[in-house]
Amino acid sequence: MALALTLGRRGQGNTWPNPAVGCVLVRDGRIVGRGWTQPGGRPHAETEALKQAGDLARGATAYVTLEPCAHHGQTPPCAEALVAAGIVRVVVAVEDSDSRVAGKGLALLRGAGIEIEIGVMADEAAHDLQGFFLKTDLGRPFLTLKLAESLDGRIATATGESQWITGPQSRRLVHAMRASHDAVMVGGGTARVDDPSLTVRELGVDHQPVRVVVSRRLDIPLLGNLARTARDVPVWIAHGRDADSLLIDTWRDLGAVMLPCDLQGAHLSPASVLQALGGQGMTRVFCEGGGALAASLLVADLVDELVTFHAGLALGAEGFAAIGPMGIEKLSNAPRYRLAESQKVGADLMTVWRR
Amino acid sequence: MALALTLGRRGQGNTWPNPAVGCVLVRDGRIVGRGWTQPGGRPHAETEALKQAGDLARGATAYVTLEPCAHHGQTPPCAEALVAAGIVRVVVAVEDSDSRVAGKGLALLRGAGIEIEIGVMADEAAHDLQGFFLKTDLGRPFLTLKLAESLDGRIATATGESQWITGPQSRRLVHAMRASHDAVMVGGGTARVDDPSLTVRELGVDHQPVRVVVSRRLDIPLLGNLARTARDVPVWIAHGRDADSLLIDTWRDLGAVMLPCDLQGAHLSPASVLQALGGQGMTRVFCEGGGALAASLLVADLVDELVTFHAGLALGAEGFAAIGPMGIEKLSNAPRYRLAESQKVGADLMTVWRR
Repeated sequence: MALALTLGRRGQGNTWPNPAVGCVLVRDGRIVGRGWTQPGGRPHAETEALKQAGDLARGATAYVTLEPCAHHGQTPPCAEALVAAGIVRVVVAVEDSDSRVAGKGLALLRGAGIEIEIGVMADEAAHDLQGFFLKTDLGRPFLTLKLAESLDGRIATATGESQWITGPQSRRLVHAMRASHDAVMVGGGTARVDDPSLTVRELGVDHQPVRVVVSRRLDIPLLGNLARTARDVPVWIAHGRDADSLLIDTWRDLGAVMLPCDLQGAHLSPASVLQALGGQGMTRVFCEGGGALAASLLVADLVDELVTFHAGLALGAEGFAAIGPMGIEKLSNAPRYRLAESQKVGADLMTVWRR
Repeated sequence: MALALTLGRRGQGNTWPNPAVGCVLVRDGRIVGRGWTQPGGRPHAETEALKQAGDLARGATAYVTLEPCAHHGQTPPCAEALVAAGIVRVVVAVEDSDSRVAGKGLALLRGAGIEIEIGVMADEAAHDLQGFFLKTDLGRPFLTLKLAESLDGRIATATGESQWITGPQSRRLVHAMRASHDAVMVGGGTARVDDPSLTVRELGVDHQPVRVVVSRRLDIPLLGNLARTARDVPVWIAHGRDADSLLIDTWRDLGAVMLPCDLQGAHLSPASVLQALGGQGMTRVFCEGGGALAASLLVADLVDELVTFHAGLALGAEGFAAIGPMGIEKLSNAPRYRLAESQKVGADLMTVWRR
């Protein structure tokens, strides 16, 4: 199952709206097939593994990170394919929560006399597939918030200089993290000030995540990197319904997908933005700031994972804050996370915090 | 030598103005004596180890973290004592930089026909003894700056609530760190707002570091914890020469040691403050903020070690900054540190950064 989980992760960021599943087929103690969800979400992991195994699948055990599907969608159900291939035992990490599948895949397998085991490495699988479950259950993607900051929580000097606080190894890891998410998201301020391209570079990855900008009034540069490349790599813009219609049309003409969202006070509602992304099939979104967007997501309790890169330098209180105003007066109201991982990356320290 | 270093560290914070040295005597593969610098700086480590070994010292090898002293001070020189005890070989981690000793201890040993080896685990010893070397060479102590902060570099909410951002395990470790320094230092603002007692608690430690407050105008509460307890645990106050003379007298009457320091602009010069502490014999000082004092020390490049405790929560930009304004416009001007250590402490992450 550990191998199946590893295989499943290969698809992360590249299978939405489908989950990134892994599958391993074992017969007589030998691995006869390995598969993971393919780009775009099809073929499924089981199909890939069965294809690789061929006749060797007969009598084998299948290890699958998610309950095999039972519904006829654009592909025949995997549960049927496993039965047809002569699989005798299926070990599943977690059940599906999609109402079209939930329990039905397992019932179909059981009905065919296949032995079932459930819950093997369930926590790991539930974490890997959390974006898919959140989209299915709550209609929003899993959200990772990344902060690359100084030891005193600053992301730029008072004059706006931010390249580079963290080192090249950290930036490379950030690119790998982008690639494992369906979308990379920034606020309008970051799009204006940094003019980022938000693509995955230097990793030999040909798949690019969708680039999402959150900007109520669409005051983002029409001649910037995002505008120029919107036809090459998707750009989605979450904007207010009250944004200038001419700007909406202009961005649409540039190739951007426009997502009108609700307001909450003077700003876009972060919940509405994530619902819009979930509605488009997004399962995993990687937010890279800036401070205002990060604060609004934290206040709305929408951040599932916080990844910090701390560089060994101090910038002082005039520097730009990694997280903007949150309106927290009492410590007990501050959103709390638990430390999941920490690792030296080049000269920096990377830490992962989860709910 | 690793054992000698560990023994030496037992004295840290408790031997000033002398260095905290460790010594192990080995004869025929057996440890016959162990010693470390005793409270107040005497007896020295070698004396302690020789006393423990007695006649067994004859023919033994001595492992000492610092070159044995050769000058007649308040105790007879250790180099002579090693010779008299019949030690045949001395392994030294680092040479002394005190002009009264430098090289003379080794020369005395060599002259007596004792075999000498130098430089074993020299880096570790140089780090442990850095405060003594800094005091001897530059007249100032080693400075550790501790920051206990949120993931976004805040040490309190906008309303000033700061108890507790980090957890009980971190606070316990902070108390142990206080005990391994000669003094604990805070700025006047922290003394005013937090009314701290700055003592070492709950560790069964009877030795208390000196408590240092840096306050140009002595605007710190006369009825606070520090004022109340100044006769029980030393309180030293670094103040401007222009501070109110009545306040100076009042604090002196309360039992505080008054250290007049130079100004640098409108604030006390951090270099002058550290020179004053070095002049009083301090070798290791532990600064616990606040933001203004931390910033002035960093800007003056006087921070030798930065210890951060990050708690898994976000407080937002209205919160109090761990480090105050530093006047840094270009990233290349920011003081940089390298990661020496990181460790999970309870729910928090502790990291140590060195120059």
